[in-house]
Amino acid sequence: MAFVLPAYHPPNFTKPPLSGAPTVTFAPVPEKGVAPENYHATTIFPEYYQLQKGSWGLLKNSRMDGVVVLTPEGALLVKEFHHLEQGEQVALGRGENGEEGIYVHSEAFRKPLPESEKFAFRIHLSRESAFSIDYDRLYELMTYERENGFILWVLGPAAVFDRDSRSALVALIYQGYVHGLLAGNALAVHDIEAAFFQTALGQEIYCKRPVHLGHYHHLDAINRVRRAGSIARAMETGLIRDGVMHALWQKQIPFVLAGSIRDDGPLPEVLTDVMQAQDAMRALTGRATTVIAVATQLHSIAAGNLIPGYHVLPDGQVRPVYFYVVDMSEFAAEKLTNRGSLAARGILTNAQDFLVILQRGLSRG
Amino acid sequence: MAFVLPAYHPPNFTKPPLSGAPTVTFAPVPEKGVAPENYHATTIFPEYYQLQKGSWGLLKNSRMDGVVVLTPEGALLVKEFHHLEQGEQVALGRGENGEEGIYVHSEAFRKPLPESEKFAFRIHLSRESAFSIDYDRLYELMTYERENGFILWVLGPAAVFDRDSRSALVALIYQGYVHGLLAGNALAVHDIEAAFFQTALGQEIYCKRPVHLGHYHHLDAINRVRRAGSIARAMETGLIRDGVMHALWQKQIPFVLAGSIRDDGPLPEVLTDVMQAQDAMRALTGRATTVIAVATQLHSIAAGNLIPGYHVLPDGQVRPVYFYVVDMSEFAAEKLTNRGSLAARGILTNAQDFLVILQRGLSRG
Amino acid sequence: MAFVLPAYHPPNFTKPPLSGAPTVTFAPVPEKGVAPENYHATTIFPEYYQLQKGSWGLLKNSRMDGVVVLTPEGALLVKEFHHLEQGEQVALGRGENGEEGIYVHSEAFRKPLPESEKFAFRIHLSRESAFSIDYDRLYELMTYERENGFILWVLGPAAVFDRDSRSALVALIYQGYVHGLLAGNALAVHDIEAAFFQTALGQEIYCKRPVHLGHYHHLDAINRVRRAGSIARAMETGLIRDGVMHALWQKQIPFVLAGSIRDDGPLPEVLTDVMQAQDAMRALTGRATTVIAVATQLHSIAAGNLIPGYHVLPDGQVRPVYFYVVDMSEFAAEKLTNRGSLAARGILTNAQDFLVILQRGLSRG
Amino acid sequence: MAFVLPAYHPPNFTKPPLSGAPTVTFAPVPEKGVAPENYHATTIFPEYYQLQKGSWGLLKNSRMDGVVVLTPEGALLVKEFHHLEQGEQVALGRGENGEEGIYVHSEAFRKPLPESEKFAFRIHLSRESAFSIDYDRLYELMTYERENGFILWVLGPAAVFDRDSRSALVALIYQGYVHGLLAGNALAVHDIEAAFFQTALGQEIYCKRPVHLGHYHHLDAINRVRRAGSIARAMETGLIRDGVMHALWQKQIPFVLAGSIRDDGPLPEVLTDVMQAQDAMRALTGRATTVIAVATQLHSIAAGNLIPGYHVLPDGQVRPVYFYVVDMSEFAAEKLTNRGSLAARGILTNAQDFLVILQRGLSRG
Repeated sequence: MAFVLPAYHPPNFTKPPLSGAPTVTFAPVPEKGVAPENYHATTIFPEYYQLQKGSWGLLKNSRMDGVVVLTPEGALLVKEFHHLEQGEQVALGRGENGEEGIYVHSEAFRKPLPESEKFAFRIHLSRESAFSIDYDRLYELMTYERENGFILWVLGPAAVFDRDSRSALVALIYQGYVHGLLAGNALAVHDIEAAFFQTALGQEIYCKRPVHLGHYHHLDAINRVRRAGSIARAMETGLIRDGVMHALWQKQIPFVLAGSIRDDGPLPEVLTDVMQAQDAMRALTGRATTVIAVATQLHSIAAGNLIPGYHVLPDGQVRPVYFYVVDMSEFAAEKLTNRGSLAARGILTNAQDFLVILQRGLSRG
Repeated sequence: MAFVLPAYHPPNFTKPPLSGAPTVTFAPVPEKGVAPENYHATTIFPEYYQLQKGSWGLLKNSRMDGVVVLTPEGALLVKEFHHLEQGEQVALGRGENGEEGIYVHSEAFRKPLPESEKFAFRIHLSRESAFSIDYDRLYELMTYERENGFILWVLGPAAVFDRDSRSALVALIYQGYVHGLLAGNALAVHDIEAAFFQTALGQEIYCKRPVHLGHYHHLDAINRVRRAGSIARAMETGLIRDGVMHALWQKQIPFVLAGSIRDDGPLPEVLTDVMQAQDAMRALTGRATTVIAVATQLHSIAAGNLIPGYHVLPDGQVRPVYFYVVDMSEFAAEKLTNRGSLAARGILTNAQDFLVILQRGLSRG
Repeated sequence: MAFVLPAYHPPNFTKPPLSGAPTVTFAPVPEKGVAPENYHATTIFPEYYQLQKGSWGLLKNSRMDGVVVLTPEGALLVKEFHHLEQGEQVALGRGENGEEGIYVHSEAFRKPLPESEKFAFRIHLSRESAFSIDYDRLYELMTYERENGFILWVLGPAAVFDRDSRSALVALIYQGYVHGLLAGNALAVHDIEAAFFQTALGQEIYCKRPVHLGHYHHLDAINRVRRAGSIARAMETGLIRDGVMHALWQKQIPFVLAGSIRDDGPLPEVLTDVMQAQDAMRALTGRATTVIAVATQLHSIAAGNLIPGYHVLPDGQVRPVYFYVVDMSEFAAEKLTNRGSLAARGILTNAQDFLVILQRGLSRG
Repeated sequence: MAFVLPAYHPPNFTKPPLSGAPTVTFAPVPEKGVAPENYHATTIFPEYYQLQKGSWGLLKNSRMDGVVVLTPEGALLVKEFHHLEQGEQVALGRGENGEEGIYVHSEAFRKPLPESEKFAFRIHLSRESAFSIDYDRLYELMTYERENGFILWVLGPAAVFDRDSRSALVALIYQGYVHGLLAGNALAVHDIEAAFFQTALGQEIYCKRPVHLGHYHHLDAINRVRRAGSIARAMETGLIRDGVMHALWQKQIPFVLAGSIRDDGPLPEVLTDVMQAQDAMRALTGRATTVIAVATQLHSIAAGNLIPGYHVLPDGQVRPVYFYVVDMSEFAAEKLTNRGSLAARGILTNAQDFLVILQRGLSRG
């Protein structure tokens, strides 16, 4: 069954309460990096701002917890607090139903819920939920997105700790199902360690045998790449010849390696300033139409913060952004929901099995 | 690569300390169900008993925490405490190295460990372990066992909550990879609920839609089978036409449904007395050469208690019993190890993905 | 702050739809242990049955998934399927709003929810929820229940694996906060192992040192009690002198030890038939006004099935039953909710810490 | 029982193999940030370097995975790869037993293990381990360290999500049990949100009521502090009047807030460059004699990487560093062990209960 984009239902601005709503007001940034009192913070939903009576503008490229700046040219930009410049005009108001000229359109893609009964089992996501349909829908979605969207992956290091899942990722890249990658130093280090030594943290990625002095492997991998100057340079010189990072390089797929305080090395491409890393990630999340986050809490929550639940296509059409979280624990999978990334769908399983099944399922079609 | 049974290394009874060991002594059961003081309790390892000087007999059909009875005919039987009859002769002694005529042969199949370093990463099993090799070895093992062994499955209800994993189980049964099943009432109830209503606890097993009045489905399934008289009768009369229980019936594969205090109904075949259920389970564990326990703590630990780490073939050859535990949590997977089922191998993943991957992998070969 | 029972809001039978509802119909049990078609299954909520026009009777002593039998004397009894006798009259109908003379009163104690916003964080229970208030409310509740209610504990063996938590339990018993106990063989075995040997599964319960031949301790404990004839007899003869089971015996507090297929031994008091065990448990759940289930999935879910969300006091007053589930995993804590025990409150923590804090908190007051 | 520092057993350099070991060799850094081939990487153990025949120097201020630089003055410094300057002399050799003049002293504090049996239960740490003794030892240790050591805390945000645990932390600070803190933006944000609004992520920290527009609270807290200029300034001006950060400020206790890509804001004191944050953390880990890491994987693993298993006191005495990891999951607690921080002790429980119990236990003494 082919995937079809769900219809977007724009708000009706001609009926109350929106027909009677005031225009939105703005106040200047009092000093660099500080929002004025009563600033409005963005959500993951489409938000409309009535700049002139009867004229509501939709935010593009939104995200969680940004503030909205009106440019001198009359455009609306979403910015982080720390990017605010003194004097910029920030939208005010915390009402979400037009009271202050802002409408948060949380029901844009929602289907009406079936009438509920007094009692039903299994209302929560859990490891015992049935996931066959999620795989099937993901096959359909990814087949669609390969041609029409932007599939952004968010990966924890466990994704490359196993030979078959590392191979599945490489195949997904060559088959066109990966348009961008967000990860940390560790994913790249262990992927490159496998390219050099066929180990991950000193353990063979297939046999799991601990190798003599294997605890040097990740450090040696980092040191060799630092010596080469960069991951890209290590590819160009033939030092690294396989793996996830190599496939990305071959296919010229953009990635961001964001630094963390756990990092050894780090690899040269790692952005050690986290705010700079967020900016680089945002350049990719701003293009994403589907996000697949696997085996990482840190990066999946970060991505969840940076990406809204909708995407405005070049022709103005509004479509949903799909966000999948694959993790072993209910706690991790629900954390995104608890933080408000309501559109996230959880699949509770091992990263390795997920990747192997997904790649095989996409190859059958 | 074809699976090859590992060699069994029998103890050397001609060297000290075993060459100088005494014969084992016995004491009578003082009253029904009570062992004499200083009884010996069995382990999962091969155990040898020196009944006459120079003649050591190997226990067959052993298990954790049984006691050893010498029959009037001179045979050694392992029994549970509650099965002891007054006057039976019970083996005494807690030394494991022949001090009292008993030798616990814990190194029978063990390979020498590689020399360890002062430091190595990743020494514990975890969700981040690489599992490709475990799947590959399992394919080889099951291919061997299909012809030469007895594959006993231990299943929690989550195995049939999903359409694809239920189908995978059915395929495994028809393909000859299932020689026996241990489970509880819930597995059979939800499998039969799916046969009747295509739901599990009222939720469609593919679409996950909650069905109107679906919380009646498992009760209706139970009631219909109780009305039919038995699961088998419900098959014979065409009431149940698909699923795991149906496939077992078609292939005449033995199963035990052990009762628990959580059970609704229960289904007629459920053994509500747990000691009687243990006896029935033991009839199957005594034949098992490979056990695959999926998504159940209760039944996997019970099976772990009932099965030793070795099996004596009809020709007297001693071979290992393989025990796989598939679970989502390190806690559950390690619980078997913590209880002493040292030979258990853990695979940390979702039951559904495990079954789907396993069935596909076995079908490729 | 003293605990006050929340008001019960009975349904209004004089208004539609209930004023126009028909009387409930019954059909005979077709054969022993089988319900007639279209039977009504009970919920955890107060349920009213209109036996004669204008006269609605409230179910007493209800539970999940029972069926309702009209006795020849005109009383309504809740029964399990397997207890049904041929010819008994069973209530029919699956409508819950009076359509068939049955009203399921799911809102009896519910407060109206506050108006929701388009977005809020932290809507799910998790390990990161704040639990101070739950402890404080529990202190108030238990202080009240000690005098006015029936506090039923449901315990997994981890509750006695630690010296301080075992002592806390003993103190709670002597202080009057324990009116009944549901557990399995393992809890009693490990508690008695501690009384005999100061170990649990061979490990000292304070120092955690593994003791030489300690893996015999639980078997020796079982064997000694079996030799004594019963746990009670082992107390009377002075064989067992401390611990949870000893305190229960001293205070003559009723308990049920329900058998499971994991059991060694078992101890003489263990009910090995699970349906018989359910009956015995039901005798206690029928009296319970507060349930505290700690570190056991098997027994907490079983208790959840056996106990309704309300209790009818001797004077006819209807009060809620409080159900606390203490566990380390969101999965386990939410399982009760997913099974419909909607009133269960989860506290995500270690059993030992919970018991120590609770006992200290109750002792301060 | 008062805590006594365990004796340090220095290596015997006068016996083989150390008596015959060569001196260690060095090679220059080929370019900034790159180690020479065959560099030695440090471990968490005391390491000795034979600079001149018969003269072995002990590394001070070591950590995992650093390299050792010989200064022109003849001192040994541990450095990260990215801090290496061209031409610096780096110690070479991967042998750990003196083969290349380096001795890794992994047995310095280890007691001989008791002889093992063929079988024992409960060899792994789990949620079912007994923790009373860990609390008692921690009381003794912290009483000692308050006077004689440096207690470094590593906290995840869950530590301040609850009123009682936040109060317990504040009390621990005022009582002198906190000498330094490593955390992230979120801990400080939610602590300050509680100071301003008595909420955490918009939920009351005691009652758990979601507050109207509460999802603005953490952003408002950040914005107010950014407006004030810094956390310190917000204290000085009386804007923030209670909580963990306030207590640290009152007592002038050093802390590091390390940035991550999940951060909102961030607060002014947050170090957004992770390598700069590591440096700042290292200034505290270098002083730490006991580390208590609670409810954070990111920061506890980072701290584990930065801190060795021993500390050299000003008088040259070598003492162990104690490292406690408090978490809800075996996976997280064992991750430190799997990464080689062998000295880490896990306590599996809820952060809130741990803090409340610890603070009460220390106040009793």
